[in-house]
Amino acid sequence: MIALARFQRPRGTRDYMPEDARKLREVAESIRKVFELYGYGEVITPAFEHLELLVAKAGEDVVKQIYDFRDKAGRLLGLRFEMTTPIARIIASNPMVPKPIRLYYVQPVWRYEEPQHGRYREFWQAGVELIGVGSPEGDAEVVALTIRALRKAGLKKFIVKVNDRELVEGILESFGVPPSLWPRAMRAIDKLEKRGRDFVEKELAEAGMGLEKARGLLDLLDKLQGHINALEVSEAMRSERLRKGLKRLQEILEELKQGYGVESEVEVDTSVVRGLDYYTSFVFEVKVPGVGVGSVAGGGRYDDLIKLVGGPDLPATGMAVGLERLVEAIEHQGTDLGAYREALVAVIPVDASFRAAAARVAESLRDADIPTVLEFGSRRLGKALERADKAGVRFAVIVGGRELREGVFTVRDMAERVQERVKLNELVNYIKAKANLP
Amino acid sequence: MIALARFQRPRGTRDYMPEDARKLREVAESIRKVFELYGYGEVITPAFEHLELLVAKAGEDVVKQIYDFRDKAGRLLGLRFEMTTPIARIIASNPMVPKPIRLYYVQPVWRYEEPQHGRYREFWQAGVELIGVGSPEGDAEVVALTIRALRKAGLKKFIVKVNDRELVEGILESFGVPPSLWPRAMRAIDKLEKRGRDFVEKELAEAGMGLEKARGLLDLLDKLQGHINALEVSEAMRSERLRKGLKRLQEILEELKQGYGVESEVEVDTSVVRGLDYYTSFVFEVKVPGVGVGSVAGGGRYDDLIKLVGGPDLPATGMAVGLERLVEAIEHQGTDLGAYREALVAVIPVDASFRAAAARVAESLRDADIPTVLEFGSRRLGKALERADKAGVRFAVIVGGRELREGVFTVRDMAERVQERVKLNELVNYIKAKANLP
Repeated sequence: MIALARFQRPRGTRDYMPEDARKLREVAESIRKVFELYGYGEVITPAFEHLELLVAKAGEDVVKQIYDFRDKAGRLLGLRFEMTTPIARIIASNPMVPKPIRLYYVQPVWRYEEPQHGRYREFWQAGVELIGVGSPEGDAEVVALTIRALRKAGLKKFIVKVNDRELVEGILESFGVPPSLWPRAMRAIDKLEKRGRDFVEKELAEAGMGLEKARGLLDLLDKLQGHINALEVSEAMRSERLRKGLKRLQEILEELKQGYGVESEVEVDTSVVRGLDYYTSFVFEVKVPGVGVGSVAGGGRYDDLIKLVGGPDLPATGMAVGLERLVEAIEHQGTDLGAYREALVAVIPVDASFRAAAARVAESLRDADIPTVLEFGSRRLGKALERADKAGVRFAVIVGGRELREGVFTVRDMAERVQERVKLNELVNYIKAKANLP
Repeated sequence: MIALARFQRPRGTRDYMPEDARKLREVAESIRKVFELYGYGEVITPAFEHLELLVAKAGEDVVKQIYDFRDKAGRLLGLRFEMTTPIARIIASNPMVPKPIRLYYVQPVWRYEEPQHGRYREFWQAGVELIGVGSPEGDAEVVALTIRALRKAGLKKFIVKVNDRELVEGILESFGVPPSLWPRAMRAIDKLEKRGRDFVEKELAEAGMGLEKARGLLDLLDKLQGHINALEVSEAMRSERLRKGLKRLQEILEELKQGYGVESEVEVDTSVVRGLDYYTSFVFEVKVPGVGVGSVAGGGRYDDLIKLVGGPDLPATGMAVGLERLVEAIEHQGTDLGAYREALVAVIPVDASFRAAAARVAESLRDADIPTVLEFGSRRLGKALERADKAGVRFAVIVGGRELREGVFTVRDMAERVQERVKLNELVNYIKAKANLP
């Protein structure tokens, strides 16, 4: 049967069936626990916002990707494409809440992008926002908790690439690029990994830099990899902006080393600028070696955004983890995210006349926190056992006339392929002992 | 400062700040555990679907409430208004998965309704779908797990009102109402509680029943409350449809009594028909005495829907809990859903020069699973202590030169208003003991 297009899921989206949902949930719960360990509180915002809010400072690349629509009263709305802007809106309209504010979220977001491997139009983000802290220690906290969250979720190997937009702007300044072109230049540089150097060179040239300067700029960014301190003695340090960016970056690195001891996982990459226009200075991305293009997490400082959406002038910094990418990266590194099992026990009545009795047995197992499916008495015992086995159920408990009369049930252990007779009042302990449950 | 409309959240939506998010999360997690105890596996579907899928059999009342829009390729989409139809789509396009299939979800849905107390345009549902079971024992399982989930979430008192649409259709038949008018009559009857008898009488009359018959019908439904077995001897039993509906309802009640022992919470209410057109026979709603209009949960059997959206002819039954209403009902009954606390401990450096040292102390507490906020060294100690107290933090650990030299920290217990000096290596145990942590 070929389903009609209108009855298929929309292009670029996916359904999570139990096995995949469990992986996503497992990773999300690990991360959530770390966020709460750092004192962050959860926030849940609506799926859609006024479009004008979303486009406030996203940058044109992302604006093109917003699902926008009018509601029945003619309001122009859009599905959120990330969570930072909605949270900035909350902060802006609650200016009296004491600072700093630590918020986190685990939510889906939507972007109308060309679907490809590992990229969907709906995807899940888990992230934090730290609002009201302008000093580098705020950025260091966000990076440190990101590292801890990724580790806790099961990611073994990754690199946190840090940079500062003011540093890059300082370099652009030293190349004579006027400030009005910086956002466009940033978006071009952000595409280095994805589109390659030739593409970015062309973009920068077209943005008004000229080919010569574009090449020089990319050469310099390249040369600076891992040698950020070289800037201190370079000519470019004449720029005040560059000096500021460099100093902040150095302070964050120092705090990550002295306060958190995570310097070995962090490196400076002057080509990391992030693709959203609202970042003002510190930015970072987390890369996993050997797992395709793109990052599993990223973030940075956005000191203008809250004011821009009508709030007080408040510094802020944050980050988001892409949960689908993280699941993929963890599995790529060989960590098992736990196979899905329908239940631990299947209770099977030998025929329909024993279904109420079987339901009672199932209920008593659930009372003891043992996940249990009830097989409906509508198929033969052999078929029911086969199905339970296929679904990954470990034990089958068979309920028939003899079992009820004698109060002794046949329990089949599907894993060990053995069958024993167990008294009703010993059933819970028997199963818990064999399955190593508390 | 008055925020501009475009920077406020869209009408009818809400933001969950940490305290409310925690309540929602707590209730959702309790329910999720019960679903898994019954062998249901989680499914996550996209926020939007092809509009044609959503309207397939929702009924005109709900269709008017769908947020619909075109994506950038011109596809007509809509935000899901419930989760049953998306799950029916999944089953339809995966016809080979062995039956029965047990799926659950905890997700937001969207309806463009007039906002009022307790009713938002975005709200959260936790529910199950049991697919491939046509017998009453499937419905009994769904009702039983609903009861258990509500109890586990903390709801103490509630009534499950059950009914069967075929029974009501049989009554409509006996009043000479043609089948083409049944869906409209059902939607009218569904409004009895919300709009009152006069309104429904008028609706039924306008639907072509005539005022006389409408009154007679409502009188009969009223008379049948709690006396469903009276139908067996009544004239109306001449209708085959009514007989079928009554028999199914009786079997479900019997199974709930014999198999699950929950009959005391269940009662028949012939005016419960649910507002969605896809229900075919058994329906139920959960009411909480004293908590406004509406139900905290509801569901029923939808044996035609999967075929209608292009799948095989598969019977199915399910239910959904409205999480916001449930939170409200639980709190109304006096259960405390756990006050929000930012963290257990605040680590406070006496000035900025101790921030790295304070970060190290905070990290060692987090290593021991103690939720800890780091106060940034940018405010005076007194202010920092005050803030920690306001945020509900229990302990403050002060980090300064003397503390580091001597390896002994000042720990202030905000609850008991005492202050003690504790060695660094005893800090974790000291806090765990005082806070009764494992």
